[in-house]
Amino acid sequence: MRFLLGMLFTLLVSLLGGCQQESGDTHTSVVNATEVKPIEWKLVTSWPKNFPGLGMAPERFAQLVTQMSNGRLKIKVYGAGELMPAFEVFDAVSQGTVQMGHSAAYYWKGKVPAAQFFSSIPFGLNAQEMNSWLTYGGGMDLWQELYQPFGIMPLAGGNTGVQMGGWFNKEINSMADLKGLKMRLPGLGGEVLKKAGGVPVTLPGRELYTALQTGAIDATEWVGPFNDLAFGLHKAAKFYYYPGWHEPGTTLEFLVNQKVFNALPADLQAIVKVAAKAVNQDMLDEYTTRHIAALESLVNDHGVIIKPFPDEVMATLAVLSKQVIAEQSKQNAAMKKVYDAYVDYEAGVRKYHLISEDAYSRFRQ
Amino acid sequence: MRFLLGMLFTLLVSLLGGCQQESGDTHTSVVNATEVKPIEWKLVTSWPKNFPGLGMAPERFAQLVTQMSNGRLKIKVYGAGELMPAFEVFDAVSQGTVQMGHSAAYYWKGKVPAAQFFSSIPFGLNAQEMNSWLTYGGGMDLWQELYQPFGIMPLAGGNTGVQMGGWFNKEINSMADLKGLKMRLPGLGGEVLKKAGGVPVTLPGRELYTALQTGAIDATEWVGPFNDLAFGLHKAAKFYYYPGWHEPGTTLEFLVNQKVFNALPADLQAIVKVAAKAVNQDMLDEYTTRHIAALESLVNDHGVIIKPFPDEVMATLAVLSKQVIAEQSKQNAAMKKVYDAYVDYEAGVRKYHLISEDAYSRFRQ
Repeated sequence: MRFLLGMLFTLLVSLLGGCQQESGDTHTSVVNATEVKPIEWKLVTSWPKNFPGLGMAPERFAQLVTQMSNGRLKIKVYGAGELMPAFEVFDAVSQGTVQMGHSAAYYWKGKVPAAQFFSSIPFGLNAQEMNSWLTYGGGMDLWQELYQPFGIMPLAGGNTGVQMGGWFNKEINSMADLKGLKMRLPGLGGEVLKKAGGVPVTLPGRELYTALQTGAIDATEWVGPFNDLAFGLHKAAKFYYYPGWHEPGTTLEFLVNQKVFNALPADLQAIVKVAAKAVNQDMLDEYTTRHIAALESLVNDHGVIIKPFPDEVMATLAVLSKQVIAEQSKQNAAMKKVYDAYVDYEAGVRKYHLISEDAYSRFRQ
Repeated sequence: MRFLLGMLFTLLVSLLGGCQQESGDTHTSVVNATEVKPIEWKLVTSWPKNFPGLGMAPERFAQLVTQMSNGRLKIKVYGAGELMPAFEVFDAVSQGTVQMGHSAAYYWKGKVPAAQFFSSIPFGLNAQEMNSWLTYGGGMDLWQELYQPFGIMPLAGGNTGVQMGGWFNKEINSMADLKGLKMRLPGLGGEVLKKAGGVPVTLPGRELYTALQTGAIDATEWVGPFNDLAFGLHKAAKFYYYPGWHEPGTTLEFLVNQKVFNALPADLQAIVKVAAKAVNQDMLDEYTTRHIAALESLVNDHGVIIKPFPDEVMATLAVLSKQVIAEQSKQNAAMKKVYDAYVDYEAGVRKYHLISEDAYSRFRQ
C-alpha cells in the first residue's frame, strides 16, 4: 500500500460494524459528563478522512473512547491534509502539536529505520503472527523503546492482512521479467525489486491509475480487492498478481503523545489502550469480509485475470528480501536489535504454524 | 479440547501480558469510584480458576472492566466447581443467578444445536475467518438471535487458533487405521470418527493421561502444545498428530444476562463489549506465542514424534464432516439457517484466502 499525500478518496463511509454500542437505561452509578470538563484531543491521520478500511480505524477508536468515557475524553479525527500533510503525523505527535496520530510505522524509516519491522517487511510475519509477537513475544516493548526518545507511545492500530501482489501490464513468468520492470513499490519491497533488476517508483495513490494507463509504470501494488476495486486499477492493468510478498501482514499504528497520556487518569489510560486493541482486530475483520465481495466483483463483473507469482520468482524474491533486510539492519544498532528479536520470533512461530495454521490452510488448497 | 468437569489444573498463572495498564497521574476529570456504589457481577466459567489460556481470558476481561470503569463495575471470576459445575454456566446466566459466564458455545448443543457453529466445526473457518464472519459477515447477529430466547447476549471471548490433531498410540496411515480406534473426541468430531468406523469416547480432561496410559483409549485430542505439555500427555502417547481438523479455529464466548446488561448505563455497556473484543484477540496472541516454547520443549526435551495425518485421511474426513454437519443441520430449522449463512461465508472467504493468506502460507512451506 504506502498511502501517500492527498489521495482523492474522501468517501463518506460510516460503516460502524461490530463495534456499535447499544444505548441502555440509566443506572444509579452513571457518571454525568456534564459534571466534568471533557478532555479534547486531536488525532491526525495519514489517510483521507473516512478512507475505507484504514481510515475507519481512527473513527471507530474515537467513537469507542467517547462511549466508554461517557464523553469525558473526546477525540476529533482529522484526515490527511486537514490539519497537516499525511507524513507530518509522527512529528506532530512527538512535539505535542496534536495528542494522537494514526499511521503506519514504515513511513518513519528515514528517522527510525527499525520502525519498518512494526508495519510489515517482505516475507515477514503475517497478521496473526504480528499481533502475537507484539503482545506476548516482546515486540511491543521494543516498539515502545524505539519511540520513547520521541515522546511517543505506539499502539497497534489495525492490520490489513496479507496484501495483493499488485496490478501488472506485463506477465511475470520468471525473474527475467522483473528486469527493467517499472513498478510503484516503495520501501523495502522496492529495494528488493531493485536488487532483482527492476525499477521501483514512488507515486502517490491518486496517480496510480493514470501512471498505469499511460504506461509510465508497468505495475503497481496497492492493498487488496476492497481498496483496489474502489481505485479502479482493474481498468488500467491486465493481470492481478498474488500474494503480496512485500507486505504479508501490515500493522497500522496509533501514536500517542506520552506526556499527555501520562497525565490522563488511570481509567482513561485503560480506555485508550483497550479501544486501540479492539480496533486493531476490527480492521482485519472488516478487510477480510469486504475483500470477498470486491474479489467476486473484480472477477465476475470486470473479468480480471488473477495470477500467482511463479514459485521460482517467489523463492528468489524471498532470498533477496532476506539479504536486503539483513544488510539494512547491520547499519543501525537499534535496527539490529529489533531484527534479531524479529528473526528469532519468526523462526519459532513458523515451526509452530507449519504444523497448525499453515498445515490446515495447505490441506484446504 | 472440550473441557469437562473438575479438571485438576488450578494453576496460579497470572500472566498479564499486553493488556496491563500503567497507572497515571490524576487529572481534574477523574471520576472517584467512592462517589458511586460499585456494581458487582459474578462471572462463572467452564474452566478451572486461572487455567492457562482459556481461563485467563475472563480474568483479564474482569481486570480491564475494573480499570476502564474506575471500579464502578466489578466482576468476580469463579472457576468451574466454585459456584457451580462447568456446564451450568449457560443456565445460570440465562436465569440471572449470575450476570456473566465464559465458556464455549458447542457445550450447549443439547439445548441449542446451532450453537456449535459459534465455537468450531470440523473443517470449518479458522480463527481469522471466525472473527471476520462474526464481526462483519453477519455471524454475530445470528448468534444473538440464537441466544435471545434464553435472555443471553453472547460476545466472542477468545480463540485458540487451529488445534492439534491429538495424541495417538497407534500410527494412522490410512482410513483403515481409524476402524475401531478408541479416541477421546467429543462433539461433531466424534461423530465424524464414528462414521469412519472409530469409537469416540467422552472423558474429562483429568482422566486423559491415565486412560491413554492404561490403553483404555488409543488416542485423545486436547488443545495444542501449551496446554498439552502441561497435562503431560506426551508421557502416555507415541505420536502427536496434526492438524486439528476437528477444531480449526475454536471461538470461546462471554455470556451476558441481557436484562442486567440493558440496565447498565451506556458507558459501562460499551466497556463490557470493548473489553471482550480486546480479550478475544488477546487469547490468540497468547496461545500463538506460548505454543512456540512448548512445542520446542516437546520435541527437544521429550523427543515427541510429530506426524501429519495422511492427505487421503484428511480428504476423507473432510467429506464425512460435510455429511455429518449437513445431516444435523437438516433436522433443526435454526441450525439450518446458521448453516446456510456459515457455508455461504466460508465459500467466499476461502476464495479470497486462497489468493492471500493461504497462498502466502503455502509458499512459506
